[in-house]
Amino acid sequence: MHIPSLIERKRDGGILSTAEIQSVIAAFTRGDMPEYQMSALAMAVFFRGMTPEETAALTEAMLHSGTMLAWNDHDPMRVDKHSTGGIGDKTSLILAPLLACDGVWVPMISGRGLGITGGTLDKLESIPGFRTQLSEIEIHNVIDQAGCVMVGQTSGICPADKKLYALRDVTGTVPSIPLITASIMSKKLAEGLNRLVLDVKFGSGAFMKTEEQAHQLAQSMVTVGRALGVRSSVRLSQMNEPTGESAGNALEVAECVRCLKGEGPQDLEDIVLDLASAVAVSPRVDLQKMLHRGDAWRKFQQMVALQGGSVEALEKIESVHRAPFIAELKAGSSGVLQRMDAGGIGQVVLELGAGRSKAGDPVDFAVGCDQIAKTGTEVRSGDVLLRIHARTKAALAHAFDVLPRHIKIT
Amino acid sequence: MHIPSLIERKRDGGILSTAEIQSVIAAFTRGDMPEYQMSALAMAVFFRGMTPEETAALTEAMLHSGTMLAWNDHDPMRVDKHSTGGIGDKTSLILAPLLACDGVWVPMISGRGLGITGGTLDKLESIPGFRTQLSEIEIHNVIDQAGCVMVGQTSGICPADKKLYALRDVTGTVPSIPLITASIMSKKLAEGLNRLVLDVKFGSGAFMKTEEQAHQLAQSMVTVGRALGVRSSVRLSQMNEPTGESAGNALEVAECVRCLKGEGPQDLEDIVLDLASAVAVSPRVDLQKMLHRGDAWRKFQQMVALQGGSVEALEKIESVHRAPFIAELKAGSSGVLQRMDAGGIGQVVLELGAGRSKAGDPVDFAVGCDQIAKTGTEVRSGDVLLRIHARTKAALAHAFDVLPRHIKIT
Repeated sequence: MHIPSLIERKRDGGILSTAEIQSVIAAFTRGDMPEYQMSALAMAVFFRGMTPEETAALTEAMLHSGTMLAWNDHDPMRVDKHSTGGIGDKTSLILAPLLACDGVWVPMISGRGLGITGGTLDKLESIPGFRTQLSEIEIHNVIDQAGCVMVGQTSGICPADKKLYALRDVTGTVPSIPLITASIMSKKLAEGLNRLVLDVKFGSGAFMKTEEQAHQLAQSMVTVGRALGVRSSVRLSQMNEPTGESAGNALEVAECVRCLKGEGPQDLEDIVLDLASAVAVSPRVDLQKMLHRGDAWRKFQQMVALQGGSVEALEKIESVHRAPFIAELKAGSSGVLQRMDAGGIGQVVLELGAGRSKAGDPVDFAVGCDQIAKTGTEVRSGDVLLRIHARTKAALAHAFDVLPRHIKIT
Repeated sequence: MHIPSLIERKRDGGILSTAEIQSVIAAFTRGDMPEYQMSALAMAVFFRGMTPEETAALTEAMLHSGTMLAWNDHDPMRVDKHSTGGIGDKTSLILAPLLACDGVWVPMISGRGLGITGGTLDKLESIPGFRTQLSEIEIHNVIDQAGCVMVGQTSGICPADKKLYALRDVTGTVPSIPLITASIMSKKLAEGLNRLVLDVKFGSGAFMKTEEQAHQLAQSMVTVGRALGVRSSVRLSQMNEPTGESAGNALEVAECVRCLKGEGPQDLEDIVLDLASAVAVSPRVDLQKMLHRGDAWRKFQQMVALQGGSVEALEKIESVHRAPFIAELKAGSSGVLQRMDAGGIGQVVLELGAGRSKAGDPVDFAVGCDQIAKTGTEVRSGDVLLRIHARTKAALAHAFDVLPRHIKIT
């Protein structure tokens, strides 16, 4: 295999065979293919794309670069959800225990936040004691007992993806649909799933800015899922305002606890039930009953405890992480709330310290926004539009300064 | 400077500023910018191109990554030629001494052959004792005495180009007009020239396959030359058959000696005079006189001697390097020679061992083809179409097998 020739073929719009893609990923994972060749190939893929067959081959090669979670024949069906991320997107924390109540298993491997989108692991780690890095044995122990587990990628899973993603991140080769597809799907398939639901968002608060891009990504992921034997479905939705009523790690966990107790905001509950019913055994109405009955809340507490987290602290998470400066942003006029821009609010939440600009940065669990009003509601001058939780007075002032630009009442 | 952002901007069709390009090249040369970022940027440039201003900035940044040949105010005008390469292209060996006879200085820095195109340094090194690696002091000594010098790139000249070219070579990013322009022009400008003539070829035996590509490259190089203060002109020509009557290192030197004695093939002499008159002080007719009078031949001998080469060996170069197997390929029918395909013959000459498939490979000085008939001439069955000089019987048989495919008589 002469790698420069493969790069040239892709550069000129040609197709790589499954065997060639396997060799490339194997050589890259072993360190036999230099990173400078992989980054050039990734850039050629950015411009030329990949066929569904190439994308499936890439996904499978990355999947087989490491280990998969292994299941027994008599184990329950494994299901999971992947979201492309968005502001205030906290659905995983409710969805996983809810599905576990339905009798399926949810071996959920998640990531950390980067840029304006938060990460499930960061949110969970705001629960004192909660461990997101479990061994494969520990993963099986938790799921055997609780039916769900929420962890970070283990060192054995998809090493090719870890290495390739780190390279793409610094070479301008992230926004390529086949590369995104292979990165997401290889990790999800490593969970040994039977069914997968994909929550693909577009709009100002999402990674994909247009519906067209989101549709292409969704199509690509479903095609690869099907090719590799996992029944996959998609929920495509617009994200112009934050999901639910908060954005920020502990603030979102608190919102999830309310939702798990059946007191959650309606939009969050709706999204969770939509996604869950796509992969569950029971119909949506029964899932809703389980949620309202507190089954999922008890399941979540069980999982938190099994993963070392303090259930006591979870119940009062807002007082465990309490930002020094909390202030309300109030409406300056009366009318209908037309805009509560997800992208703008995500940026403010990032700047407050809840997110990270680059991988490895620490996050502040306490800061963010909550009590975020929903668009379409009538507000009167003086009503609270949202609350800001800040670490410093300067950060609070900055948020007060910037946020009104992203909010519109008419 | 955040390099991933610059890569993304170029990827998305944006423009890099002169300061940004300078920073990138400086960081890359120092080793502060990883090769995987440069290869991704080079691939983005392959797809998006560069404006003339960006190309000039890149050329200048690469030029200033190292040292330039330094000249005094009272030194004669410096001129040079660059050829994009072609089969049997041996013009440099005649042109440099001829221009030196005209009173201008020719500080010619050349390269080695790669693939089907030969290299000036390889040809010169077939002359026993000839040294192509001179220090800058030695370069000045030779030119002070002979008016011309023919050497390889010194370690001080354009280190950025050396590093970038090596990277492009293995990442599928060679055929990009702005990158080719910057690579060629930075090295030529490092010679401290006043005038430059560019010999840009297209066709089966050239690097550029179409006239359109060759025209674009020529335009790009002339624009950069003008922007950086060197009067540059272009000779654009088709290469469908080899230049002159031989291809192969010592065989071409022998042909140059004949041409320098005024006995050269007409097409070779014509090309040399065309190129020389573009940068010389004297008109073409006077240059032709100097050539026919033997002035350039004496000048070449002087330069060879100053660079350590044996003039005695030069005069009998064909017997110094004599291939063990020499055989004639004869016409199988009578008619007009319609095709003597340069690309095909170049490939055979490469396979005979005269060229190298990858940088660093050794070359065989003795092998190649000579007495190559010119297209348009009438041939009779049994006439010699060319002679093959081979190292082994098997190589000879292979050449006999392949060559007829590239020759057509009707």
